[in-house]
Amino acid sequence: MKNIRMIVSYDGTSYNGFQTQPSGNTIQDVLESAIRALSNEDIRIIGSGRTDAGVHARGQVINFQTNSRIPAERWTYAINARMPEDIVVIHSDEVPPEFHSRHSAKRKTYQYTIDTNQYPDVFHRRYRVHHYAPLHVPAMREALNALVGEHDYTSFASPQSTQPSHVRTIYEARLADGDGRLDIFVTGNGFLYNMVRIIAGTAIWVGEGKMKAQDIPSILVQKDRTKAGPTAPPQGLTLLQVEYPE
Amino acid sequence: MKNIRMIVSYDGTSYNGFQTQPSGNTIQDVLESAIRALSNEDIRIIGSGRTDAGVHARGQVINFQTNSRIPAERWTYAINARMPEDIVVIHSDEVPPEFHSRHSAKRKTYQYTIDTNQYPDVFHRRYRVHHYAPLHVPAMREALNALVGEHDYTSFASPQSTQPSHVRTIYEARLADGDGRLDIFVTGNGFLYNMVRIIAGTAIWVGEGKMKAQDIPSILVQKDRTKAGPTAPPQGLTLLQVEYPE
Repeated sequence: MKNIRMIVSYDGTSYNGFQTQPSGNTIQDVLESAIRALSNEDIRIIGSGRTDAGVHARGQVINFQTNSRIPAERWTYAINARMPEDIVVIHSDEVPPEFHSRHSAKRKTYQYTIDTNQYPDVFHRRYRVHHYAPLHVPAMREALNALVGEHDYTSFASPQSTQPSHVRTIYEARLADGDGRLDIFVTGNGFLYNMVRIIAGTAIWVGEGKMKAQDIPSILVQKDRTKAGPTAPPQGLTLLQVEYPE
Repeated sequence: MKNIRMIVSYDGTSYNGFQTQPSGNTIQDVLESAIRALSNEDIRIIGSGRTDAGVHARGQVINFQTNSRIPAERWTYAINARMPEDIVVIHSDEVPPEFHSRHSAKRKTYQYTIDTNQYPDVFHRRYRVHHYAPLHVPAMREALNALVGEHDYTSFASPQSTQPSHVRTIYEARLADGDGRLDIFVTGNGFLYNMVRIIAGTAIWVGEGKMKAQDIPSILVQKDRTKAGPTAPPQGLTLLQVEYPE
């Protein structure tokens, strides 16, 4: 039995998110169907975590157990021949039996991208949220900095979250100010349901002056979702990287 | 009567090219339909030139004559409210009556983008052509340089071209070597049918070693389409900019 790991990149626009669900049409469904066809086994894959409908990934990590004789590195080539054009496996390797793409993950990095051009850039409309209006970047940076550390992020999680604990650690939350775009990069040891989208929505509110960066510590302490900003739209979000111990 | 000019950006993936044609579904159709609805006039727009099905634009230029009282600068806002998400007007202004977006154009610049990653970048798949294989960049640059100047480009035009003369001037043809991508930028006083795509296809052949950069002068002299490389796929091509006299 081999434990195969894959790094998967996808444009989530047309899918109901990563994880299998009753309404179908998920990234997991597409991957499992191809892996089953190649291995002739009833394989279930494990993803590093869900991504919502419309959310993208550059470096989603999955793993699965197989008796297939396909060499680990060969899986990439084999599976890509069966992928639609919006899902690409960019790497595959064999990992120790105990590797679990979700439980073993140590750090995840997400990117949230805002198109700040006066009129939307049509070439990135599926991957950026258009927001034309002056955004106060230093205030947004200050708000993001205030979120770094170990905190209970209940105020920044969907009330639908079923996690027993809402304590997580954000190692870094930074804003890159580019040509017609703002990119928020958030790295943490784990994220709650909608957490990065709520962080992005809150940063945008701070940038618009609807909320103050200095209020973030108090918002965290209140553990009340209604105190933070709105949940920013899914299409601006990309799971960039999942890191594991060496 | 005002002469209104607009700069238009579009993702050409879903259209049968810029120019109105019997099968419909063109960029021109969409623009004219919105302009007619706003002006209540039977307006025809003039584009700086055609773009093929699947070809994109960042800076297509159009103009039209109207008696509408909509202020020139206000057109951008008005028309974007009626545009699908893959067409955006990024600028509008009033120009002198004699301005003609095709006849007045002095220089056009096209970009052709090749995705050189081992596996295609899903986020740019609609705007780049995937080509994973070592491409010899210095040879490609030499080939592009050999195309600069005033030449008869019959060897680099579709045999379907109906232009009376195939003499054009290329001012610049350069290759930018980026992170997982190659960009060919070609600036000229005008381009023949499929010309930039044939230049791109030829540059790729030179990069693959299927053709030599030193052969370009002889290919030009022969005025024979079969001597140049293939016509590269449309989705890699973007009309970047059209320039006019001050």
